[in-house]
Parts: sequence; C-alpha cells; structure tokens
Amino acid sequence: MIPRYSRPEMVAIWDPANKFKIWFEIEAYACDAQAKLGVIPESAAKAVWERGNKPYTPERIARIDEIEAVTKHDVIAFTTELAEHIGDDARFVHQGMTSSDVLDTCLAVQMVQAADLLLKDMDALLAALKTRAMEHKLTVCMGRSHGIHAEPVTMGLKFAGFHAEFQRGRERLLRARENIATCAISGAVGTFANIDPFVEEYVAEKLGLKPEPLSTQVIPRDRHAEYFAAMGVVASSIERAATEIRHLQRTEVREAEEFFSKGQKGSSAMPHKRNPVLTENLTGLARIVRSAVVPALENVALWHERDISHSSVERMIGPDATITLDFALARLTNVIANLVLYPDAIDRNLNQMGGLVFSQRVLLALTQAGVSREDSYRLVQRNAMKVWEGQGDLLSILKQDDEVTARIPVPQLTELFDLGYHTKHVDTIFRRVFGEA
Amino acid sequence: MIPRYSRPEMVAIWDPANKFKIWFEIEAYACDAQAKLGVIPESAAKAVWERGNKPYTPERIARIDEIEAVTKHDVIAFTTELAEHIGDDARFVHQGMTSSDVLDTCLAVQMVQAADLLLKDMDALLAALKTRAMEHKLTVCMGRSHGIHAEPVTMGLKFAGFHAEFQRGRERLLRARENIATCAISGAVGTFANIDPFVEEYVAEKLGLKPEPLSTQVIPRDRHAEYFAAMGVVASSIERAATEIRHLQRTEVREAEEFFSKGQKGSSAMPHKRNPVLTENLTGLARIVRSAVVPALENVALWHERDISHSSVERMIGPDATITLDFALARLTNVIANLVLYPDAIDRNLNQMGGLVFSQRVLLALTQAGVSREDSYRLVQRNAMKVWEGQGDLLSILKQDDEVTARIPVPQLTELFDLGYHTKHVDTIFRRVFGEA
Amino acid sequence: MIPRYSRPEMVAIWDPANKFKIWFEIEAYACDAQAKLGVIPESAAKAVWERGNKPYTPERIARIDEIEAVTKHDVIAFTTELAEHIGDDARFVHQGMTSSDVLDTCLAVQMVQAADLLLKDMDALLAALKTRAMEHKLTVCMGRSHGIHAEPVTMGLKFAGFHAEFQRGRERLLRARENIATCAISGAVGTFANIDPFVEEYVAEKLGLKPEPLSTQVIPRDRHAEYFAAMGVVASSIERAATEIRHLQRTEVREAEEFFSKGQKGSSAMPHKRNPVLTENLTGLARIVRSAVVPALENVALWHERDISHSSVERMIGPDATITLDFALARLTNVIANLVLYPDAIDRNLNQMGGLVFSQRVLLALTQAGVSREDSYRLVQRNAMKVWEGQGDLLSILKQDDEVTARIPVPQLTELFDLGYHTKHVDTIFRRVFGEA
Amino acid sequence: MIPRYSRPEMVAIWDPANKFKIWFEIEAYACDAQAKLGVIPESAAKAVWERGNKPYTPERIARIDEIEAVTKHDVIAFTTELAEHIGDDARFVHQGMTSSDVLDTCLAVQMVQAADLLLKDMDALLAALKTRAMEHKLTVCMGRSHGIHAEPVTMGLKFAGFHAEFQRGRERLLRARENIATCAISGAVGTFANIDPFVEEYVAEKLGLKPEPLSTQVIPRDRHAEYFAAMGVVASSIERAATEIRHLQRTEVREAEEFFSKGQKGSSAMPHKRNPVLTENLTGLARIVRSAVVPALENVALWHERDISHSSVERMIGPDATITLDFALARLTNVIANLVLYPDAIDRNLNQMGGLVFSQRVLLALTQAGVSREDSYRLVQRNAMKVWEGQGDLLSILKQDDEVTARIPVPQLTELFDLGYHTKHVDTIFRRVFGEA
Repeated sequence: MIPRYSRPEMVAIWDPANKFKIWFEIEAYACDAQAKLGVIPESAAKAVWERGNKPYTPERIARIDEIEAVTKHDVIAFTTELAEHIGDDARFVHQGMTSSDVLDTCLAVQMVQAADLLLKDMDALLAALKTRAMEHKLTVCMGRSHGIHAEPVTMGLKFAGFHAEFQRGRERLLRARENIATCAISGAVGTFANIDPFVEEYVAEKLGLKPEPLSTQVIPRDRHAEYFAAMGVVASSIERAATEIRHLQRTEVREAEEFFSKGQKGSSAMPHKRNPVLTENLTGLARIVRSAVVPALENVALWHERDISHSSVERMIGPDATITLDFALARLTNVIANLVLYPDAIDRNLNQMGGLVFSQRVLLALTQAGVSREDSYRLVQRNAMKVWEGQGDLLSILKQDDEVTARIPVPQLTELFDLGYHTKHVDTIFRRVFGEA
Repeated sequence: MIPRYSRPEMVAIWDPANKFKIWFEIEAYACDAQAKLGVIPESAAKAVWERGNKPYTPERIARIDEIEAVTKHDVIAFTTELAEHIGDDARFVHQGMTSSDVLDTCLAVQMVQAADLLLKDMDALLAALKTRAMEHKLTVCMGRSHGIHAEPVTMGLKFAGFHAEFQRGRERLLRARENIATCAISGAVGTFANIDPFVEEYVAEKLGLKPEPLSTQVIPRDRHAEYFAAMGVVASSIERAATEIRHLQRTEVREAEEFFSKGQKGSSAMPHKRNPVLTENLTGLARIVRSAVVPALENVALWHERDISHSSVERMIGPDATITLDFALARLTNVIANLVLYPDAIDRNLNQMGGLVFSQRVLLALTQAGVSREDSYRLVQRNAMKVWEGQGDLLSILKQDDEVTARIPVPQLTELFDLGYHTKHVDTIFRRVFGEA
Repeated sequence: MIPRYSRPEMVAIWDPANKFKIWFEIEAYACDAQAKLGVIPESAAKAVWERGNKPYTPERIARIDEIEAVTKHDVIAFTTELAEHIGDDARFVHQGMTSSDVLDTCLAVQMVQAADLLLKDMDALLAALKTRAMEHKLTVCMGRSHGIHAEPVTMGLKFAGFHAEFQRGRERLLRARENIATCAISGAVGTFANIDPFVEEYVAEKLGLKPEPLSTQVIPRDRHAEYFAAMGVVASSIERAATEIRHLQRTEVREAEEFFSKGQKGSSAMPHKRNPVLTENLTGLARIVRSAVVPALENVALWHERDISHSSVERMIGPDATITLDFALARLTNVIANLVLYPDAIDRNLNQMGGLVFSQRVLLALTQAGVSREDSYRLVQRNAMKVWEGQGDLLSILKQDDEVTARIPVPQLTELFDLGYHTKHVDTIFRRVFGEA
Repeated sequence: MIPRYSRPEMVAIWDPANKFKIWFEIEAYACDAQAKLGVIPESAAKAVWERGNKPYTPERIARIDEIEAVTKHDVIAFTTELAEHIGDDARFVHQGMTSSDVLDTCLAVQMVQAADLLLKDMDALLAALKTRAMEHKLTVCMGRSHGIHAEPVTMGLKFAGFHAEFQRGRERLLRARENIATCAISGAVGTFANIDPFVEEYVAEKLGLKPEPLSTQVIPRDRHAEYFAAMGVVASSIERAATEIRHLQRTEVREAEEFFSKGQKGSSAMPHKRNPVLTENLTGLARIVRSAVVPALENVALWHERDISHSSVERMIGPDATITLDFALARLTNVIANLVLYPDAIDRNLNQMGGLVFSQRVLLALTQAGVSREDSYRLVQRNAMKVWEGQGDLLSILKQDDEVTARIPVPQLTELFDLGYHTKHVDTIFRRVFGEA
C-alpha cells in the first residue's frame, strides 16, 4: 500500500484501530455467549463491554505494541492491555478460545468490510458507465478487430459492454463476499473441545457472519483464494477498459481523451502532450491486484490443521489488493464520467477507409442475389483492394464493376451504405444489458 | 496435455471431431433460424442437416486440414469441406455470420462439456470423501498445527473438511459453467448488422446456452477468466488434500498410506519404500492447473472489439487445464477411496507427547477454578516443560504439583484427560457439512 | 504442445526416441566408467555399446511402454527392454545408480539441446533485426510516448532497440543453459554411497555437462527455475516487439504491415482486412511461455532430499515452454524479415501534429536565450495549444508570437524545425548496439 | 511493505529522502557535464552543488509534496523546490532532459543499492550455512525421498546443499545487479536530440552505472524483469530451506528446532508447543517475493517508445520485493545460525526402519555376487517386507534367508550395515561446494 494509490476509507479498514475494535467485539460477544451458557458470570460479560468498549487510540495501540515486543504474541498483548482496563473480570475473556479464533474471524470481518466498499465502488462505476452508455447510445464510431477497422459500432455499446462486464464482476465480488463471511470460534484444532459451538453461532450472528461449518483452527483458505481471484478478474476488466481508452486517445485516433484539468502539466518536455496517464496507471494497478492471485492460491495448502505461512502473505496482499482495487475503481469511475469524446475525430475515422466497412454487407447482398459465396467473396475482394490502394471509395468503385451491378442495381447498392443498418439492434442489446427501462 | 495425465472422455471434448461436430450444429441450427426468418429457403436448412450431419471421420478432418493449408483460415476450410457434402445449398450456410460466432460459441460448448465432466468428477470425489468421513468419524488421531501436535481430532474430520472444501469448489465450478454458457452470433463487431438476434437466441436455446448480452465479435474474456480461476482454486484444494496425505505417509508418521498394488515396484534402489507418489504427483498437477490462471487473466484486456491474442492461449490452456484437472480429480478420488489407515500408528502418535495435548484443557480448568489466566498459564507451562524434557506424562507430573492440585483435586484432574472431550461436537460438525442425515 | 505452434526440431528433443537415446548413453557411459574402476567387467561395458546402441524405433518404444504398464516404473521398464538386447551382461547396467540419476541427467541434456536450438533461433532473429535496423537506420518516423506523438525517432532505432533487448535475452538463455548443464549420478540421496563420483565425472564429460556439485537424488530445481525465468523474460520481449508491430499496423497508423501472402484470406466477413494476426498470436504465445515461470518457481522447494511433485510439472512445461518459444522466435524472425514498411504513412504521421513535436526544442532554445524555464514553458504551451486546436502549424504560429520572436528571431526559429536535429546521434546509438562495424 | 517484515537499511533506500538525494545528484552531475560541454555556465553547475546539495529533510520533502499537489508532476515539483534554494541559476538545471532521465536512472541506482544490500545479506547467510555445514559435516542423519526414509546423509550435507544453491542465487543477483546498473539521459524518445550523449556517459560514471546503449525515454524493462526473476528464484530457495526445517521440527521428527527464546510465548492455548513459526513465515514471505515476478514480466511490453503502466507496478514491487527479501534473508540467516539440532532424535530416526535403508547396498552386493538384477531385487524386497511388517531388523532377517547367505556369507553381510559407507564421499562433496580449504 502506498499513499499515492490509496483512499482513506479502505485504508481505515486495515488500520490497527479497526482491527483491535473487531478483536474486542469478538471477545466481548463471546463473553456474552459464554455468560448465556453459564460458563462465565454475566457480570463479567457486562464488565467487558462497560469498561473495555473504548476507542483504540494511538496510546492504546502503542501500549499493545509495547507488550507484544515482550511477549512476541499479538493476541496475548491485546488481552493483556484489555485487562488493564477491565480489571479482575478480564480473566473470563478469551476463555476456551485460541488466537486464530480472533484473528481469522477478524480477517473475515475486514474482508467483508472491504468487499462492501468495493461493491459500492462498482455501483458508482456502473452508474457512470450507464450514464455514458445512454448518452452515446447512437454515437456511431468505427469498430475495430485486430486494431483494424471492421464495421461501425457506437460509443454507447463500448460503455454498455464494460457495464455488462463489471456487472458480472460485481456478482463475483458479491459471491466472494458471502463466501468469506464466516466466523470460526472452534478452538485449537476446530473441535470445540474447550468451547461450545453456541459461542461461534452467537458471535457470527452479531457480526453478520455465518459459522464456519468446519474450521481447523483456521478458516479454510479456499475462501480467501476465491476472494482474491474475484478481485483479479475485476482488475483485468479494469485493464480492458483502460486499454480501450488508451487506444482511443492515441494521437492518430484521438476519439476520446481523459479529462485534463487546466492547471495540470503534461510532460515537462512536450507541453502539447495530453497523455492518457490515468488509464496507463490503471493498467499497472491491474497488474498489482492480479499479482495477489497466485500467492492466495498457494496459501490454500496449509499443513495438517494449519500452518502460519498464509499469515504474512495476507498481511500484505489483504490491504494491498483491496486498497489498490478500491483506488483503481474510483479512478476508472472518474475517468469514465469525465471522458471527453471528440465527434469530429470519430466521424473522420469512421469514413477513413472509403466505405470498406460496408464490404461485408455487399458480400451478403451478393449472396442473397444468388451469387455463390466464393464468387461473392472474389467480387468484393477485388473491389476492396482498389479502395485499399487509394483508387476511390467502395461505393463509387463498385458502381463501375459490371459484374456487381448486374446482380445489384446501383440504387439498391447505394442503399447498402447506410449506418442505420449497423445500429438497428442497439436497442435490443441495451435492453439485454440494462433491462427494459 | 500428455497421455500420462489424460483420460479419454475429457480428451474427446477437445478432439477435432467434437469441435467440428459443434461447428456443424451451430451452422445448421443457424440455418434453421434463418429459414424461420425467411432469410434463406427452408429447403436449404433441411439440406444442411440431411446431407451435412455426418460424423467427422479422420478422412473428413484430413480434408479440412488440407483446405486450411491453402486458405489459412479454419472456418472457411470447414465450410468449404461442408459444401462438398451439401452441394449448392451450401451457399446459405454461415450467412451473415463471422468466424468468431462459430469459434467462440463452440468454445463455450466445449467448456460447458468440460465443466459437466469436472462436476461429475467432483461428485465422485465428494462421495468417496463422505464414505471415508463416515467410516472414520470417530477415529481419533492427533491434530497438528505448525506440524506440531496440538489437540486430538478425528480422521473423519479431515475427510469432512476436504468434503466441505470441495463442495465449495463444486459450487464455484458450477457458477463458472453457468457463466461460460453463452452463445454469440452477432457478427463482426457484435451489432447484429448482418444477422438477426433471433438466430443467436435460437441457436443458444438449441445448444443449452444463453445469448451473450453484449458480444464484440467475441464473448468477453472475463467469463473464461472466472472459469480458469475456479479451476485454480479447486487445484489448490487438491494440493491441500494431497499434502495432508503426504504428511500422514511420512516414515515417522505413517498413519496412512496410498494403496500399493501387489505388482507395483517402488524405487529401483530401495525396495522397501512405499512412496506417496500419487499425491506428490497431484501436488505437481495442481501447479499445472493453477498456471492457467494468469494467462487467462491476461487474456481479458483485448484491444477494441477484439484481438486474437487470446486464441493461442486458449488452444493450450483450454485442453491442458481441464484434462489435467479431470485426471487429478479422478486420481485423488482413487487415492481417497483406497487410502490405507494404520490405527496402531494413529494411536502411537496420539500418545507420543505424554498428554501434553491436554494442557489447554488443564489451563481452562485452572482458570475456571479461579486462577488468573496469567498464573494458570505459568502453572501449565512449568509442568508441560517437564513433560517436554521427558520426565513423564503430563497427568503424572501435574499430580505432583501442589499448586495445581490445590485448585483441581486429583480425581477431577484425571477426568480432564479424556478423548471424548475432544469428539463431543463431531456430530455437530458433521451435520453442518453433510446435513441432517 | 500443439502441432500448430510447434517445429519438428524442438519437438524431436522431447520425443521418447531422443529421451531413450540419452538414457542409453548415460547408462552406457556409466558402464564404461564402472569398468575403468573395475566395478564391472570391461567386456560387459563393451557389450552394452555393441548390442544396445541401436535407434529407439517405435517398436522398441512400444515394448518399453508395455513393460512399464506392468511395472509402473519407467526406468525399470527401460533397463528391462535393454536387457532383452544385451543379454546376460545387462545385469551390470545401472549398477549403484538410482532412477533419478538417469532421469535428471537426461532432462539436463534435453534442456541443453533445447537451449542450443533457442540460441540458434535468437541468432536468426538478431540477424533479421540487424538487417532491418541497418536498412531503416535513418527512416525517420514519429516517436510516441503514452501512445501520443513525442519527438521523431527512426524505424532503425526501433529494430536496434529490439536487437539490444534480444541480445540481453540471448545472454540470459546462455547463462541458463550453462547453469542447467549438470550431471548427477550420485545415488538415492546424493552421497555416492553405491557409486564412485568418478562415474558422474566421466559421464558428465562425455555428455558435455559438469558434475552437479551437490545433488540429493535430484539436481536442485533452482537451476530449472532460472531456465524457465530466462525464457519468460525473452517471451516478454517478444510481446514487446509484437505489440509495436500491432500498433504500427492499426488502420489509423498503418506504418507497417505483416507480410500478407497472395493466396491468404483475411476475415471471412471483411475481405479488405489485413490483420496483424501473427503478432497477435505472438502476444498470446508469450503468455504461454511466461505461464511456466510460476510453476517452475514452485518446484524449487522439494521435501527433504526430494519429492516427485516437480516431475509432472516438468513433463508439461519442459516441452511446452521450449517448443512454444522456439516457434515464437521463428515466427517473429519471419515477421521482422518480411515486415512491410509504408514510407508515405510514416511521413504523414510524422507531420500530423503540425510541428508540435519540435516544441521541446523551442522550449530549450528559449531557455538558452535567457528565458526562465517557467516562462519558456508558458510561452511554448500557449502556442502549442493553438496548434492543438487546429489554428495552424507550430512554426507559423510561433512566428506571430512577439514575445517569442523577441527572444528567437524568425530565421533561427525556422532552423529549429529540422529532422536532422533528431537523428544526429543515431550513429552513436548504433555503435553502442552493434559495435564499431 | 509493512514494518513487521522490514529492516531499516533497505527501507531507507526507498525513502523519499534517498530518492531526492539521487535525483539531485543526477541533475547536479548533468550540470557538470553540460558545463564541460559549454552548454551551461560553469558557475551555474557550481552553484547547483553549492546551494542545492543539502539533505532532504522532512521539511523539504513536504515542500516538494506541496508543489506536486498543484502541478501534479513530481519532477517539476522537485526542480521547483530546488530552484528555491539555488536561485536564478536553477534555470540551467534539467536542461535538455526529460523526467524519465531522472526517474529511471534513479530507479537503477536504488535497485543497485538494494542489490548490494541483498548480496551482503546473502554473504551472511552463506557464512552461517558454511559454519553449520562444517559443524555437522559428519552428523549422520536419515535422508528422505518422498518423505520416506531412504539412505543416510549428514546434516552438514543439508546445509552444504543450501549453501551451493544460495551461492548460485548470489550469482544470479549479482548479474541482475550488473544488468540493471545503467543510466539513461537521452531525452524524450532516447535520441539525444536535446542533450549530448556525453552527459549520460558522465553521469553514469559518477553514479557507478553504465550508459544504457539504447533507451526510449525509458530503460528497457527486460532488465527489471530479470532482477525480479532473480529475486523470485532466491525466494524459492528460501522456501526450500524453510520447508526442510519445518519438516525437521515436526513433532514426530523433532531433529531440529528453531531457537526459542526464554521469554517467548508459544500458542496461548498449548503452552508446550514450540512451533516453527519463523520458517513458516519465511514460506509465506517467499510467496510475496515471487508474486512480483509476473507483474515485472508484464511490464516489459510497453507501447512504442514508452507508456507509464510500469510505474505504479514498480512503485509497489520495487520496495516490497526487496524489503521482504532482505528481511527474509536476514531471518533465515538467524534461523540457520541458531538452529538447535537434537542428536538423540537424529539417531532414533536413523534407526527407526530397522536397517531398511541398507537395502540398496544389499541389492548391489547381491548383483555383484552374480545374482541377476531382477532376482536381487526380489530377494531384497521379500526380506524388506518382513522388516516393514515389524518382524525384526533387516540384518537379522537377511541372516535367516538362505538364498541370500548362499551368495553373501553372514560376516560380509554384516559389514554392509555400516554408516561409514554412506559418508565416505562427504569430503568430495564439500570440496566441490566450499573449495579446497
């Protein structure tokens, strides 16, 4: 995590203050449950909330760090500091629990919080994409396969395509969120030997989680792996959208441009340059988010009931991947919302190939007029090559090809060169993506 | 794909014969739809089925290859060969379609077929795991964290844990299957300029797919990325189970062993050795399946409406990852079903630490008897260290510690050392994993 | 490995016939060494060569497979078949050796052979790049950063840059080749308990390898990891060159084009299209080669003196990565050698921005004329913006800016707009890359 | 980067204060060179050093940040702040240079500094490994393949094997260091249009770098990719060593143990536990370091003369990977240096299999006594199986097999069971690894 690519709300989720707050809640709710079971006095559970439920100030965190420096054990340091506030009743805290009960459940809560923020980010992105899609639903532009002009599409279709893709990404994140939302308070090897499953169920409900069906000191890491993989797919979709914009902003294409604020300086050397630096940056950030996927997969195969190799990995990729993805989603939303489109350039590019983009339609018309597919292909190709070599536009050239006009009279031929032909099903596609509205 | 790690059913899915059969069906159903629309004669659509619907024999495939060697275009080679069977009506085939309509929809069908096979594999694995879980539900064995003896678990819990994890993996694969099951027949840039969306809807239904809401010549690659990621998570779960068995088969542990057939030779140099080669192999195969995840993620960001960089990647990872995972799931099922457990060794290891594994329970009992957590910890630790140094078993040593027996009388102390204490919630856990049955 | 992306010479390296040939040589040379040591009779060693040194025909390979189906052990199957040729003396074969001695040394030989072929491929690629670099040393074209026009470069510099990069890649591959070229004949755990180190030294020398300083039944896998990592870096360089060409072939840029053979059909739907399919394909192949890096790294941490998890991985990525890289290097060489450049388009793009690319030089001239950097920047920027808005070319507009001409008189200003200014150090750069010649 | 896994010396390399110091030196040396060329006044160059060469205090850094918040350009912010110290002569700073000249050369310096620290770390690790190797050169212990007892090795051989592997890793890092040590001061597209190559050569020499033969605004990223790949291989070797120790510390094996300080608490629940948490942690850290390799490879294929997608990636993986690897190497050195070995357990395990580990030697002796390989194998196997089934130790059982003693008389048979047989070549191996000393 580096400040440049971070937003405070997501950073706060991974802050020690939030972590200790969650730890406290786990311990305090567990005390409530233990009190209900009669394992500890109700007064003790009450004391924990009354005397312990205070914000984790920098001072408190420093005190915990101080204790940990001696004990080299984070949860003991935490409970020791907590005991300094609670007093004698503190001995009822953490009874029958193991450190991982606290750590793993806390991580689940943090990952749920992070997912909720990411889902909110995606909603904003989806909203921006929908707005731009509606706005440019019928802004016809050149479609390109292999970077080569193909047939017309519309700018709105591009935005709608990203919308559909991020909608799927949202569903993946949502499932990953539900999948990670489990609570484990099951003891040293997951057998509930020293603690009743009721405690887990009680704490789970209070924290908005489900009990982990079978934990082994730890929550199984396939859950975390799915979560990071879901983020990796979303990151790749970000890269796709960013790549589209980078292409559209190329000097030779210049159909679109990232918003460029008045005060902003471009290159120090080339003052005229307006570089797509935000989307290039997003391309890099996507690589970062994706780089968490492999270690998360490698974390799954822990030894026996658990080893701690996953821990250092998660300390890093947990914050890094979520903070980076949060930042990237927000940045992309901003880029999309403010993207400048240049209608003149869009039109210029659309017409650049002299109507060659209508060749497929001519091909089809010839076939429908009874020419064999192979012959139609040959006819279109020989005229297309003339356009390619700069001898004129496709319509003019076709008009001079008797073999063509013998099958398709000139008036009908002219009608084929119509952009409306390409946009007639945009409504259908938009309905599929955005629903009936 | 290499034969050693392949099974014929999955290999057949990726065979040219299956591919061309699917291509034919796409084209033939599309003709039906075009005939219904009145775009082509009904007789033509009928002719396609009547004259074209024949198995793709090696001879036909060789003919297609021969044509492709000249045209350097696979779909044209395919339709040209098909025309040799259909005759004149062949000109109505592929009308308004683009190659990717065929290729991408076919890939979707193949990935659905592959997923169905993988789901069947997982069902078999889940069944084997459930059988072994039930069989060893109360086979108490040592639980280990960090590779160090912790507290007792049961062998059944291990199998049940894998069952729960593969059940989640199955759900991921199922969602990936549903997510990949889309059909795109939308033309060169996805606008349906030359073909009515009805054709896509019709073919989709016939093939058991859904229409792709918005394609851009190709189906968006986030769908494929999710699919490979889901396989990567399952592969990691395979690695986890394999690692468990490798550990249990270590010479010093020897609680379990892969089935070793009579005729089978172990190491040529050390005939006594029975190596966990199947699970070691599974560990490697998991790495292979996982290695498809990153290129699948890199495939998402295609240029504009499509570039073809994803194609070579999918030609390799499509078959390789599914064939390898199919093989690995079947191998793991076999390993699980035939795994030999050694009760004597399980007991020996359980008792190896002189009862140290009960220390947590003693700690808890001391706390409940009113000793502070810190003091309880100190008391248990000083006695545990004696056990560790080989001075006897924990119970005997604790009995001699007056500070302990002052709080917990010897009879009660003895009762703490009871395996039933650790298995009392196994039923609860099994219910969570396997349901009420 | 799939035939479409394979070349026969590299495929042959991984063929069973080559593998068994190498196995035979290892065994036979080991017999020679054992005979020299007096461990086995010289006549036996002689018999091995005389009766065993025959090509591994499909029949022999089938026979080995047949035996392996029973013994489930590849090296025993191999020696058993060999014994059928050698007769009684066969009992002296493989004495004191372990299977891995044969397998791992064979893999080293295959990886050396593969590296030699890749180095040859790279030499061909470097030659093609040098030829094109020399040819277009002074073909001035637009340089682009962020996809935006920056300052002029030359086409030759592009080729020279790839040459320098692949030259470094060649060095990495060469080091990887040297690093993998070790022989291990050290027995079951690498202690030479049953075989004298002389045998390893002898065989190593005969096979062009060095003895592995310390093997543990297997050659340490960091060597293999370096090898796959080196290929991964080369693959990424291929992607870089391919990406450049894909960009240059875009419709709007069209400065270069992959060679398009007369008979070749492009898209079935758009006959005018000449798509950069070879370089798009190379982009995908690069992903495949790179995907071997992570599993190769995961293979390093084998358990104790060895586990066999690496083996299945290497069976797949060994052939796949080398065959794919060999194919990709050859394809890229072909693309480079035949790349069509379009001088008109190159010039058109060079002048497209109305001289804005000279802005940096103007900025510098202003600074040198005593204007502060900040003021110079402001002066250039305000005029550049007019060009950007289409009011004319930079030189004309600057001439009308009195604040500018007050510092740089018009004649001097005109001199600044000179392409030679940008090419004056091309010779220097070429000398650095290609040497003094 | 998180403090828990960081050491101050490496952190300092990536600190803004170090970065700005390097930026200053690049600019100041460039001024010197420009002055020598007569491009700027000598007095200006002198002024830069005299007035600008001050530590980058938190106040200065804050001021730079403040300016960057407005200009959104880091190098302009830097030079602007610098100008506040230098005054009027500041206009000669950065002349003819582009931001990347500063940024990329600085990154090269930082990566060289980081590599130097890593090389020092590796020297310390190699020293610790050598010490332990020498100490335990002849501490015979069980060698294991597949986790199963194989033949004896020595603890010293294990350490020596890691030494040899890290020695190779050191060489890879050293080459990566040399490969990254280049300086680019070549202008906006690498043509030296606005700056003489002499400046690059001059600055390179002053900073201990070589001039980049051909840069394109940026230094080619294959250099960086090699660097991260080299770290990835070293990380995998760390994982291998860590895995070995984790295995040796398993309860059932307990041949070695990480040093456990007196005050340190283990699990809060199981006070007797001494977990190999440091090596488990190293296993996780290895995953982190490795996760930088793929994004570094993805960074190679920049668009045309450069895009900035690599930048965000490097901002993260640059510090993260080097800081983590530095920490991991130091931690591993500490673990190795203080690793506790338990001779009793080593012996117990060595003898656990009843001499089965000598079976290979018996096999060989039978072969040498004229028994066919197949028969020898059968003889050894049938006796080995008895040992495996607990009927006694191999020597005793073999003595009762007449078919065996007919070929190898009992006295000779007894001699075969000798540990010295397995250690006789340890000296040879040590000479290979550590040289003649």
